[in-house]
Amino acid sequence: MLLLIPGPVQTRPELRQAAARDIAPWDNETRAMVRHVCRRILDLAGGITDQHAALPLQGSGHFLIEAAIRTFMPPGARILVPGTGEYATRIVRLAREAGRIPVALPVPQDRPVPPRAVAEALAADPTIGHVGLVVSETATGVLHDGAAVGQAVRAAGRRLILDVVSSFGAVPLDVAAQPELDAAVFTANKCLESLPGIGFAVAPVPRLLECAGNAGSWTLDLAEVYAHGLRSPGAFRFTPAIQAIAALDVALDLLAAEGGPSVRLARYRDNVRVLRAGLRALGLEPCIADDAQGPVVVNVHAPRHPAWDLQLFVDALKRRGVLISNFFSTVEPSFRVGCIGAVGPDDMARAVAAIGAALTEMGIGQRRAA
Amino acid sequence: MLLLIPGPVQTRPELRQAAARDIAPWDNETRAMVRHVCRRILDLAGGITDQHAALPLQGSGHFLIEAAIRTFMPPGARILVPGTGEYATRIVRLAREAGRIPVALPVPQDRPVPPRAVAEALAADPTIGHVGLVVSETATGVLHDGAAVGQAVRAAGRRLILDVVSSFGAVPLDVAAQPELDAAVFTANKCLESLPGIGFAVAPVPRLLECAGNAGSWTLDLAEVYAHGLRSPGAFRFTPAIQAIAALDVALDLLAAEGGPSVRLARYRDNVRVLRAGLRALGLEPCIADDAQGPVVVNVHAPRHPAWDLQLFVDALKRRGVLISNFFSTVEPSFRVGCIGAVGPDDMARAVAAIGAALTEMGIGQRRAA
Repeated sequence: MLLLIPGPVQTRPELRQAAARDIAPWDNETRAMVRHVCRRILDLAGGITDQHAALPLQGSGHFLIEAAIRTFMPPGARILVPGTGEYATRIVRLAREAGRIPVALPVPQDRPVPPRAVAEALAADPTIGHVGLVVSETATGVLHDGAAVGQAVRAAGRRLILDVVSSFGAVPLDVAAQPELDAAVFTANKCLESLPGIGFAVAPVPRLLECAGNAGSWTLDLAEVYAHGLRSPGAFRFTPAIQAIAALDVALDLLAAEGGPSVRLARYRDNVRVLRAGLRALGLEPCIADDAQGPVVVNVHAPRHPAWDLQLFVDALKRRGVLISNFFSTVEPSFRVGCIGAVGPDDMARAVAAIGAALTEMGIGQRRAA
Repeated sequence: MLLLIPGPVQTRPELRQAAARDIAPWDNETRAMVRHVCRRILDLAGGITDQHAALPLQGSGHFLIEAAIRTFMPPGARILVPGTGEYATRIVRLAREAGRIPVALPVPQDRPVPPRAVAEALAADPTIGHVGLVVSETATGVLHDGAAVGQAVRAAGRRLILDVVSSFGAVPLDVAAQPELDAAVFTANKCLESLPGIGFAVAPVPRLLECAGNAGSWTLDLAEVYAHGLRSPGAFRFTPAIQAIAALDVALDLLAAEGGPSVRLARYRDNVRVLRAGLRALGLEPCIADDAQGPVVVNVHAPRHPAWDLQLFVDALKRRGVLISNFFSTVEPSFRVGCIGAVGPDDMARAVAAIGAALTEMGIGQRRAA
């Protein structure tokens, strides 16, 4: 089965096998592995030892985002969230339920957030202390520019929380070049091409120290994760999904062997290119224009045909060995195809063929390529 | 390597292999598996369909306990926590940091919590709405009686949160017989003998409905986990450690094949008996008397010998293929040996032999058995 979803992604068998063993989290060899993983994560994020920390936390991206909001924003503080799509809406909800005040900033969803819109919103409301930006918005597939928006945040003297959940490991991140950054958060099961269960926040040490006591939650307090790591390097406060970390250790080897994030990003862009060309040849139209299409996920307008049914389409694709999401997050009906994970352009060509065959089976006519 | 720790435990290879595959969490087959797992969990807990719910949440036991406290107690509400040991202390901290008021109840730690002490504390303070009890206290190895303490809670008209993290799957639980129960919480990686990364709360449906809005956290809101499960049966709100759930599906088959929790409990009690007899033959003394010793973990007084060093001892055991914890939670120095997981009395005999050999290597004399 070829998994073409924007995470959890297709992984390589060697990392799954590395995870298929019993592991004691506090064992000295395990702790050395955890430290090694964290050092490499910090390095990938452009962090500087002793100035930044890579903090592991069990859970999905949402757990990491809630933890970052709780840790770096006191209760009642305000965060501006550009409305890039469903995942921005989730940041709004995470902040609100955690007792912080989200301020939604409407922006066009089909292209990158204009830094000037953020600058103007911050200038208009000095009570906003933070900006929360989704870099790769799964709902649309658009890639937003965390560095450019960060510059506007920095110029306004505010702080930034970056959701790089579905981009980290491929799309460049350089936390040392973004002093406005409080946290960049991500998980192992997207562009790092590993298993779900573990995520990370990369954050500046001075902020972790000054933000101790904000969180209002022991489990989701990143300042406490940092403090605990100082006392017990490589040890978790609470039993983690340790097999997911053993898998990530191998996944980071595989990332290095591939040539690092830039090579991986080029592969993903190739995946996107092959997929979009193939879809168009089938008469299907991606939701996002070529120049705004990110490297992670391609959302595609559902065929305007009475026989269209997303679950039937997903089932027909699955019978052909290709698994895509059975839901969508766009306003108009669509389907989405992930372009990340241990998959290459040949896999995307295979997926296009399967999509064509599935549509034919459903009786949905296709425009043939010239 | 024989893992003898009170979780994550030694597991069977077939469940680890079941986890060594890529899985799409929202896939219809996955959702059917999740529903099947939850139904069996509910059944094991003695829950009644439509009256109780088994709610999966990613994370360790601490995440589940914080979620239960947040969900069933409004901010500022008070919870009485009998001081059974380290894990009770953690409930106190989880409650306090979540903005609830913990009231610690000092009790002797070397025997089960007397229900009368709880009854008296509740009678003396009508502002206390909840009691939080650790059933199997890892720090001591004592098994507390959740049903007997629950009776005192019920008689006082208060609500109960049971931490059955390290006992569920072996020690009986019958939530239908405990109407005072708001939640029993546990994880997959203890007596269920599966991998870490996923836990559950079993809770009464009417309370889940009336407690919506308490949590002050989207990720840790069990009322919302329940509501989401109604809307999308078998689907998670956020990407879980799905491999841990696939492993649990097999682990539950293995539990049934073994004969269920009562047979498993008998095996663990055999493990404890063989271990304690063997330790005594080596001149070592368990911290807890025979009649208060629970079936999960045996804490053992460290030898009073100048050559004793816990890490060296753990290393010496590890070279002999036995892995135990390299830390302890008792007041006096001790070491602890887990008796749960896919291990039997023969394994415990092997562990005793390894302990004897390790002590000899360290130059720590042993009293020989007669």
